[in-house]
Amino acid sequence: MDIGKNSVLIPIDIQKGFMEGKYRNRNNPDFERNVSELMKYWRESGGRIIHVRHDSLSESSPLKAGKPGFNFFREAEPLDSETIITKHVHSAFIGTDLLKMLNSMEKPELYFMGITTDHCVSTSVRMASDYGFNTSLVYDACATFDRRSADGSLIDSQLVHDSAIASLKGEFCKVLYTRDIIS
Amino acid sequence: MDIGKNSVLIPIDIQKGFMEGKYRNRNNPDFERNVSELMKYWRESGGRIIHVRHDSLSESSPLKAGKPGFNFFREAEPLDSETIITKHVHSAFIGTDLLKMLNSMEKPELYFMGITTDHCVSTSVRMASDYGFNTSLVYDACATFDRRSADGSLIDSQLVHDSAIASLKGEFCKVLYTRDIIS
Repeated sequence: MDIGKNSVLIPIDIQKGFMEGKYRNRNNPDFERNVSELMKYWRESGGRIIHVRHDSLSESSPLKAGKPGFNFFREAEPLDSETIITKHVHSAFIGTDLLKMLNSMEKPELYFMGITTDHCVSTSVRMASDYGFNTSLVYDACATFDRRSADGSLIDSQLVHDSAIASLKGEFCKVLYTRDIIS
Repeated sequence: MDIGKNSVLIPIDIQKGFMEGKYRNRNNPDFERNVSELMKYWRESGGRIIHVRHDSLSESSPLKAGKPGFNFFREAEPLDSETIITKHVHSAFIGTDLLKMLNSMEKPELYFMGITTDHCVSTSVRMASDYGFNTSLVYDACATFDRRSADGSLIDSQLVHDSAIASLKGEFCKVLYTRDIIS
């Protein structure tokens, strides 16, 4: 696929805190490889990467600035020249300059990936789409965890992932695979 | 439950267009009854209702002002004294005065219900929570439809509903049942 300077890759919260034990049964074992390949491809193609990271408002969260869990996965480390946006809620657009940054570009095309599919990725994709941006999500460069239904029963992470993406597909974004992009 | 003047019931898109054939296999046959009971209870208790409706930007959508599908369900008809907000995207907060309206109230507590659980209700709940509001969703006063996974396989509407709510529960909102509220 053609990745140009208006193609914006937006990795969401690819931070080590998500490796901790409280997050159960992550799906997508290929996540790290796909994230790493997409970043490499973007850098080679001259696309723009805007890294989004989460600084939790909760002291007990591993995703809090200053804690080891705040750091990026090795596969998702930004270059010094790349933009980093720090957010405090799920959406990358609330309390940040992301909207202003994207509005200053000419017809940006957004490609989202990251953790977790159904929380921060989904929320950011929804707002991007509702703001009118051309929005894609990379299916196999997102990941999530088991969740509990309203009645307490377990929903497996792969089903959470698939159902979350089924709700976004066609309605808020295009759904692509890493292999669709790197070819 | 105590419903006071800072308790805001926000029915999302309870419009006849969703009765049309393109929307398949709606879950929650008790939806209409619960919506109707909650509205009645809110009115008797002195709570506030802010009705949200969708006016699609697509000419072919049944949810377009002027079409019969734009009208509210009989069970969700606003009173003349109640506020109606018209939106054009999924989120009730984008392109509307809802945020300003809620910010002008003293500690509002928000209760969301409506159609569809995983599209406009979920998007609006996510933003309400990210803006810092005390947010609840009424499980059995929401409804959705079958969706297609990224690989084309069908996800049944009840599973879409349960998975969408599992992703919101505890993270973006409290999940309540009609019977928790009306007691």
